[in-house]
Amino acid sequence: MPKSIPDIVIGRLPIYLRALQHMGMEGRQVTSSQELGERLGISAAQIRKDLSQFGEFGKQGTGYNIDFLSKQLQEILKVDRVWDVAIVGAGDIGKGLANYNGFSSRGFRIVMIFDSNPNLVGTQLGGFTIKDSRLIKQELESSNVRVAMIAVPAAQAQAVAEQLVEAGVKAILNYAPVNLTVGPDVHVQHIDPTIHLQRMTYYLD
Amino acid sequence: MPKSIPDIVIGRLPIYLRALQHMGMEGRQVTSSQELGERLGISAAQIRKDLSQFGEFGKQGTGYNIDFLSKQLQEILKVDRVWDVAIVGAGDIGKGLANYNGFSSRGFRIVMIFDSNPNLVGTQLGGFTIKDSRLIKQELESSNVRVAMIAVPAAQAQAVAEQLVEAGVKAILNYAPVNLTVGPDVHVQHIDPTIHLQRMTYYLD
Repeated sequence: MPKSIPDIVIGRLPIYLRALQHMGMEGRQVTSSQELGERLGISAAQIRKDLSQFGEFGKQGTGYNIDFLSKQLQEILKVDRVWDVAIVGAGDIGKGLANYNGFSSRGFRIVMIFDSNPNLVGTQLGGFTIKDSRLIKQELESSNVRVAMIAVPAAQAQAVAEQLVEAGVKAILNYAPVNLTVGPDVHVQHIDPTIHLQRMTYYLD
Repeated sequence: MPKSIPDIVIGRLPIYLRALQHMGMEGRQVTSSQELGERLGISAAQIRKDLSQFGEFGKQGTGYNIDFLSKQLQEILKVDRVWDVAIVGAGDIGKGLANYNGFSSRGFRIVMIFDSNPNLVGTQLGGFTIKDSRLIKQELESSNVRVAMIAVPAAQAQAVAEQLVEAGVKAILNYAPVNLTVGPDVHVQHIDPTIHLQRMTYYLD
């Protein structure tokens, strides 16, 4: 696999995969870069260029086999396996994540939930007993968790991230509206609704 | 204002603004592209290049005045005003958004919440009475709402988006894990945790 593919291209692959999986669920077997592009608002040329970085997935004129291309993208994105995931924070967002049923078919499985609120620790959420955040390191060390989601208030997020990283986590999805500082070998993605909204208001009159 | 600034640059401005506002809250007055870059994991050169597209915000050697640059970015992103926002969907995610207190200081104000579940319609959430989703068009037409967040199940999201657009909404933040098809004059951003997770697992061994 080439090493130097731009991150922006990697960022589009999960979007292609999601669209292909939807088409698969609709019972479709073949698609084209044109059709994918129309669904996604991305040019067909861009899609062909992105995919061509990883190999030849379609034949000229016959389009892409949906099932084959989905499997290839799953393999490239390493979601042809199931990643164990920890959630830290059992507020509204953590609850939403714990109850969300869109992970398991797409390569992820929630395996633990932590919170620091003593009123929540020990209670049930999404089939799990909420664990005490002070035990993050201890609990993760005896697990296979390398992916985590942070859904705690902004003021606590950096400390939580540091505990997760110490316990071996390499990929963090951060819902706290604050930037996290982690080592270069740890991947972080941020979800902050205000950031997304501000990116759109730029274009409004 | 130049018209042709790449969307990827626009996408970084809210991240700069958030970091500047955090620094402001810490009582700081001046920063540099170096310091911002270290906080954000973005190169100082990239930050200088991005900002230079909009004018001269710092003097060589003296750095950026945090308050001044924040105000300029707010103006560029059009969040020097307050946008009224509607939420559709009062499940866990909608609840989290309704209760989130990070909007008002950053240019947005939730003004209505809709849901289609008769058990939720009429109940209170975040200081609002949840309205019936069937009334979206009617309620929005007598309002000033041009920005909305969709937090409904995937199967309902497209229909909700169409109602919002008919009622004049021009920017949609979509939490449903499905792509939305809207006209070219409507801006959509997607938040799907699985997409973000998959973008990171690519890099894991």
